Amino acid sequence: MAVFTAASFLFCLLCIRVTVAKYEPNWESIDSRPLPEWYDQAKFGIFIHWGVFSVPSFGSEWFWWYWQGQRREPYVTFMHKNYPPDFKYQDFAPHFTAEFFDAKEWMDIFAASGAKYIVLTTKHHEGFTLWGSETSWNWNAVDLGPKRDLVAEVASAVRAHSDLRLGLYHSLFEWFHPLFLQDAANHFATNRFALAKSLPELYELVLTYKPDVLWSDGDGDAPDKYWNSTGFLAWLYNDSPVRDTVVTNDRWGLGSICKHGGYYTCADRYQPGHLLPHKWENCMTIDTKSWGYRRNAPLADYLTIEEIVETLVETVSCGGNLLMNVGPTADGRIAPIFEERLRQIGRWLRVNGEGVYNSSAWRAQKDTVTSGVWYTSRPRQNAVFAFFLVWPTDGILLLGEPELAPGQTQQNQVVLVGHGPVKWEPAKPSGIRVFLPQLSISQMPCQWAWTLRLTGAK
Amino acid sequence: MAVFTAASFLFCLLCIRVTVAKYEPNWESIDSRPLPEWYDQAKFGIFIHWGVFSVPSFGSEWFWWYWQGQRREPYVTFMHKNYPPDFKYQDFAPHFTAEFFDAKEWMDIFAASGAKYIVLTTKHHEGFTLWGSETSWNWNAVDLGPKRDLVAEVASAVRAHSDLRLGLYHSLFEWFHPLFLQDAANHFATNRFALAKSLPELYELVLTYKPDVLWSDGDGDAPDKYWNSTGFLAWLYNDSPVRDTVVTNDRWGLGSICKHGGYYTCADRYQPGHLLPHKWENCMTIDTKSWGYRRNAPLADYLTIEEIVETLVETVSCGGNLLMNVGPTADGRIAPIFEERLRQIGRWLRVNGEGVYNSSAWRAQKDTVTSGVWYTSRPRQNAVFAFFLVWPTDGILLLGEPELAPGQTQQNQVVLVGHGPVKWEPAKPSGIRVFLPQLSISQMPCQWAWTLRLTGAK
Amino acid sequence: MAVFTAASFLFCLLCIRVTVAKYEPNWESIDSRPLPEWYDQAKFGIFIHWGVFSVPSFGSEWFWWYWQGQRREPYVTFMHKNYPPDFKYQDFAPHFTAEFFDAKEWMDIFAASGAKYIVLTTKHHEGFTLWGSETSWNWNAVDLGPKRDLVAEVASAVRAHSDLRLGLYHSLFEWFHPLFLQDAANHFATNRFALAKSLPELYELVLTYKPDVLWSDGDGDAPDKYWNSTGFLAWLYNDSPVRDTVVTNDRWGLGSICKHGGYYTCADRYQPGHLLPHKWENCMTIDTKSWGYRRNAPLADYLTIEEIVETLVETVSCGGNLLMNVGPTADGRIAPIFEERLRQIGRWLRVNGEGVYNSSAWRAQKDTVTSGVWYTSRPRQNAVFAFFLVWPTDGILLLGEPELAPGQTQQNQVVLVGHGPVKWEPAKPSGIRVFLPQLSISQMPCQWAWTLRLTGAK
Amino acid sequence: MAVFTAASFLFCLLCIRVTVAKYEPNWESIDSRPLPEWYDQAKFGIFIHWGVFSVPSFGSEWFWWYWQGQRREPYVTFMHKNYPPDFKYQDFAPHFTAEFFDAKEWMDIFAASGAKYIVLTTKHHEGFTLWGSETSWNWNAVDLGPKRDLVAEVASAVRAHSDLRLGLYHSLFEWFHPLFLQDAANHFATNRFALAKSLPELYELVLTYKPDVLWSDGDGDAPDKYWNSTGFLAWLYNDSPVRDTVVTNDRWGLGSICKHGGYYTCADRYQPGHLLPHKWENCMTIDTKSWGYRRNAPLADYLTIEEIVETLVETVSCGGNLLMNVGPTADGRIAPIFEERLRQIGRWLRVNGEGVYNSSAWRAQKDTVTSGVWYTSRPRQNAVFAFFLVWPTDGILLLGEPELAPGQTQQNQVVLVGHGPVKWEPAKPSGIRVFLPQLSISQMPCQWAWTLRLTGAK
Repeated sequence: MAVFTAASFLFCLLCIRVTVAKYEPNWESIDSRPLPEWYDQAKFGIFIHWGVFSVPSFGSEWFWWYWQGQRREPYVTFMHKNYPPDFKYQDFAPHFTAEFFDAKEWMDIFAASGAKYIVLTTKHHEGFTLWGSETSWNWNAVDLGPKRDLVAEVASAVRAHSDLRLGLYHSLFEWFHPLFLQDAANHFATNRFALAKSLPELYELVLTYKPDVLWSDGDGDAPDKYWNSTGFLAWLYNDSPVRDTVVTNDRWGLGSICKHGGYYTCADRYQPGHLLPHKWENCMTIDTKSWGYRRNAPLADYLTIEEIVETLVETVSCGGNLLMNVGPTADGRIAPIFEERLRQIGRWLRVNGEGVYNSSAWRAQKDTVTSGVWYTSRPRQNAVFAFFLVWPTDGILLLGEPELAPGQTQQNQVVLVGHGPVKWEPAKPSGIRVFLPQLSISQMPCQWAWTLRLTGAK
Repeated sequence: MAVFTAASFLFCLLCIRVTVAKYEPNWESIDSRPLPEWYDQAKFGIFIHWGVFSVPSFGSEWFWWYWQGQRREPYVTFMHKNYPPDFKYQDFAPHFTAEFFDAKEWMDIFAASGAKYIVLTTKHHEGFTLWGSETSWNWNAVDLGPKRDLVAEVASAVRAHSDLRLGLYHSLFEWFHPLFLQDAANHFATNRFALAKSLPELYELVLTYKPDVLWSDGDGDAPDKYWNSTGFLAWLYNDSPVRDTVVTNDRWGLGSICKHGGYYTCADRYQPGHLLPHKWENCMTIDTKSWGYRRNAPLADYLTIEEIVETLVETVSCGGNLLMNVGPTADGRIAPIFEERLRQIGRWLRVNGEGVYNSSAWRAQKDTVTSGVWYTSRPRQNAVFAFFLVWPTDGILLLGEPELAPGQTQQNQVVLVGHGPVKWEPAKPSGIRVFLPQLSISQMPCQWAWTLRLTGAK
Repeated sequence: MAVFTAASFLFCLLCIRVTVAKYEPNWESIDSRPLPEWYDQAKFGIFIHWGVFSVPSFGSEWFWWYWQGQRREPYVTFMHKNYPPDFKYQDFAPHFTAEFFDAKEWMDIFAASGAKYIVLTTKHHEGFTLWGSETSWNWNAVDLGPKRDLVAEVASAVRAHSDLRLGLYHSLFEWFHPLFLQDAANHFATNRFALAKSLPELYELVLTYKPDVLWSDGDGDAPDKYWNSTGFLAWLYNDSPVRDTVVTNDRWGLGSICKHGGYYTCADRYQPGHLLPHKWENCMTIDTKSWGYRRNAPLADYLTIEEIVETLVETVSCGGNLLMNVGPTADGRIAPIFEERLRQIGRWLRVNGEGVYNSSAWRAQKDTVTSGVWYTSRPRQNAVFAFFLVWPTDGILLLGEPELAPGQTQQNQVVLVGHGPVKWEPAKPSGIRVFLPQLSISQMPCQWAWTLRLTGAK
Repeated sequence: MAVFTAASFLFCLLCIRVTVAKYEPNWESIDSRPLPEWYDQAKFGIFIHWGVFSVPSFGSEWFWWYWQGQRREPYVTFMHKNYPPDFKYQDFAPHFTAEFFDAKEWMDIFAASGAKYIVLTTKHHEGFTLWGSETSWNWNAVDLGPKRDLVAEVASAVRAHSDLRLGLYHSLFEWFHPLFLQDAANHFATNRFALAKSLPELYELVLTYKPDVLWSDGDGDAPDKYWNSTGFLAWLYNDSPVRDTVVTNDRWGLGSICKHGGYYTCADRYQPGHLLPHKWENCMTIDTKSWGYRRNAPLADYLTIEEIVETLVETVSCGGNLLMNVGPTADGRIAPIFEERLRQIGRWLRVNGEGVYNSSAWRAQKDTVTSGVWYTSRPRQNAVFAFFLVWPTDGILLLGEPELAPGQTQQNQVVLVGHGPVKWEPAKPSGIRVFLPQLSISQMPCQWAWTLRLTGAK
């Protein structure tokens, strides 16, 4: 029958038959895949939320939903005061100009921040694709607004940095797509949207841009069966061009979050405070109130560099990666306040990165005696790292967790990273007492948190 | 297999199973359906070309193709002079405002023109749908521009006039749709576009708006097999809610034009000049150079009322219907010059309509002796109608074709329609000589062409 | 006196001192100037209302005042429905694009209409100047919108037609100019606006464009003293480069209308119906409800060609000139409906113009016996012209006014203009009875009103 | 003389006659006025450059001139790439939306920065007035763009802070005003522009907003005679409502800069490095390359807080005031990077302000032995302040200039401001040696420069 033939054709284009399929399209099999090593070593990535929501740049990247879906007062008022009565969200798209967008400039900033991977929203819940998706005609960045393939430009600039990897965020559902709304109204007994839109896009993204991270989001309360997530992931892991390196997350359908897929994200700004048995990621924002750029965000809404450093060390100590978000402007800039924070964290990482990158969680995550002290380790180097957020007034830092054999040798020492070896002594009943050097402000290795490398600590 | 199920589900939604299918999905069967009678009786319809092309309103409704597909000089220059460098056709859509659009006002004008059916371009080759098509999200008149369901408004206003019928024009292909371009590149061995876009739209249009005319256009060089035209037409004729009244045309795939389907259109502005064995339609334009509104059309490009009347009588005499096009403006108006022509032809039809509506072609279409004379007949009334375009200077009109028995009776007379009986006499070697009355200009039944009703003529 | 000194300072740059000033700056002297002959001979001109009001193109060229000054409901609603809340009239200016404006095309149409002079609104009450006025910076057509000197383009195109003359309309006051509002609040005891704005503009217009008609308008309830009108007119008549040919009207300050200046306009659409002792002009509109283009004008609001012909003959018969207005669109076009009317009146004048151009009022203006008959005369040719609007059914036209000696000679005959001599006989108690020929519709000299030339009539 | 008469006519409306005029309209008299004390005590102000140039927000607030006057390549290219061919600078105005502008929020930030006066560009060289100037109709922020009186809103918000004073910047000339260009072409032998535009605006500003600083700029190479500057200043000092408090600068005509008027500005970013005999002001920018907001400014173009502190202490030490500029965005925001710098300098001033506000230059401005040390004094408190930019590694700061009698008493001590008394000893051959305390980073009074208060130092 014609319909059948056409449909099977539809997907066979995307399929590459292989003789031996390693992974089966079920969670048990999918979940059994080991996470490619690079991801755990990278520790720190940059998340980019960019889209038509960057045009109103008001309130949140959920602007459309809050305005039209929930009719929240500030959004309704903002539109009422500034736009004609019949203005629709779609009318913002032509103003997504990206005239100052230079992916190379972005990557220079991101590389300077010390990040190792970059995750771009190729399509958020608004459905607007930052590339010229063939199933999102006239609602994408090539046909409208920038008139450029933003994904291609970012991908190419990422690859020009040998120590950066490309991640692509993709929202499964779309708030207002008529086919999705129809499927939802059918309680997902139908799946026109998933077949016609989400799945073709996922294949298109992987085949075209070959990402190392595929950051799925937004199940719209539909189960993974609806999205055919395990089928797609089996293809991704078995047959796709990135099957050896790609990492994905856990947002693949109702109920899969924090339970199935690649690494776990669990919740936005997830920070468990203790070690998790499964690799996880803390995705969070520098602008504490929004992922997309907000023109009206005052300075107080941005994290300080001190808060950012604390978040990073806590996350890494507990086995997570930090994916820190910036929202570019509709005209394509990383606002200077973001650049300031990114360069600050980069300055910190250039000094303290040896305790972050390629590190593992230690047996203790934080010190039990002194608060504001977090640990990582690098077993091959016989090193434990203690990050301390506050420099003690008297210069003496008491660490309750590590045990170090008395006697200062190469295999048995405490080093203030960026400075040099420091004195210490065993403490009672346990731990060590570290005597920090007296440094003038210009002599300090950095200004916001410091790292001790404890060689030989147990 | 999931794909199969999903695909069959996709279309079964649209299908209404019936036990006995009268028509099979092949041309022989489809072509065997008799044309519903109302269509041949209606004779005169109005065609409306309205879409995003009404915004540049320059050159032609093929603006996009001429500018971007063919890079024709006047279009490229027009854009270069008036728009930013990266302006795309899609950027015109927000300016399709329709703020003055009032379907009732349109229908009042169209009804006054004497038209009996109205055919609206629900989607031209640009792909922009004038209704909120679920498969054309964000490229339709509900999401963009007018923010209104223009098809619904027209349909409802048409139905408010008991003597008007609704026709919907629909372009199968779309110049720039990525899925169509992909199928075309595959020489139509694939049909993603037809399945995902054209067919769902056709079903949607029929089920939602229940048109009496479905005016298909634009095969994009793809055969009817690609479009699954016979499958759709079988459904339309067997199962659709308009199966008893709907009329369609002949543009259903490469090679079908002037050969298969409902009535024949053969070519734009088709005027064979002789009787055709198959019902046909002359679709033509008041603006001789464009179907869409052209802002820069000078008066000389518009047909005069004399030319329109001549076209109408020739068309009807040869067995055709006339579908006369007007292009509304982007802000939703029928320009006064169109209104002038429409009301003029309406004035003419109010006098002379008895020779047009419900008429049949006579044995002769035009007179063999006097040029500018065209015939129709109404057999049940024993009447032949002779339209003469030029009032003879001497008041004597020689008709070579009709034979009338001498002697003036009720069953055997010549009447100047709108005036009354006139004298005549048999002519040699054949025909009759009609003595027109001497009328001052204000006494004439109309000013542009006149009708003689010949009762009893052979 | 301070005002005088300031004014002379401001304008001495522009002044050319002459030794003998013929006209003094007072009405008695100004009014004594004979009207240059060309004007009375011209009879028919075209008025053009074009400006920022052509952008909303809604309701009237008084849009700004009705919307913001009077807050009339339809205007307020129109703006509320279609524009953002803080949209101001000034925001329309960028949309006054004139992209299709071609002054040569306009003049071809105007020349074809039979008009002999063209009057363009160089500045309406909105204050927006169609040329780059040095005292209207950033509120003129060179700085905004068209970015072109529209006055220069019109002037140049007018001059390319040897039988057209240039007229410039200029509004003295401006609804919302802060200096005018200030002067008005001071009951015109101050005249900052007149000195800084209106007078410099008048000098600029005359010196730059050398118009043959200066059509002043809009006193804003300020007396001519405020405007220094007699001072300006004395300069115009004595010293300006157009002192020998320029014609002006009567709108030069509160109370001057229909009383002082050049020809009288008295009121818009002034039609006294009888002969006036002073040369006058009937300025009127084809769109009966607006001078500026109205997008939403239905055909019924446009005068028919029959009404236009009637207005023209009545006006000319009573000694007036007809200044017929068209409103171009914001993108620079003369809409086809205007072109149709203009070419129709042109066709009529090409046949009947001999009774119009260079004619004088006759002793009788209209016939006393047959209504719809109007007279003019050309004494040097011993001719009286009778225009009749209705062709009598019986072909016999009774004229009560003219007396003609019996006997048909070259010096004593009646000619149907465009056809030839016709029979007539003296009538009782007075006048003549004209026997019109029996003409088929295609033989008639024209279709809307006809002219009899009566040679030797008294 | 005509000019004088005209001017007095124009302005007598605005004048309040007083019996005794203290200052004559000549520089000798004008320059003799003592500067109101508050200004020298204030030391630190915020400059705001805001206008239509904030819309392109590209390159510089001189955008118009660089683009159209000089045709500089980056500007021409920027426009060519992003705008239609006939786009003019005036077309930017509608996009100056100021939708997020909240003067109260601005003032909260400015007050937090420690500034004592705020100087707003009421009109830059582009001529666009931020208030509804009666001589700049339709080229001001009330008629276009914001549709608000921005000057009034800023003035009112400034006054709500008891420790802030209002300053108004005003450009005398305008790059492209036709009357100015005309006067310039006449080598300033005419002064239509000065009379019609600049002078009325200055009076309007002073009378309406009653500023404490009038910051004149932009002579356009015209001498003060052309601008009638001494006449205006005599009125300002004698008769205006702010005659007792107003401070003005030195940019009042060609040749007046650094020579006449109130305080001297001499040049943008003026930093003489030594004490001047006349009160002066260093106006400079946080964005080192522009006064207006530049969207495309990278972080590297912004001064660091260390650079700002250094500039402030150097300026104040040499007797100047610092007027530090921020450029708000077209939508009315102070970008977070500016807010960050402003709050940083505010944090610094809250600790170290006692050496800044109300201070006087000391006998030495900078230390002769240790670089990076600057002095001020407060004689009434018997205090000398030494700002040191670098914390010495060994904690010992050698000051070569101050002499202090040995022995630590209340009248004879060295205090680290924000911390407390510190040890010191006389140094050889002169000066003192200060022993700074050993402080952990969190104990330091601030992080970027520190202040020693030397009581009793000579």
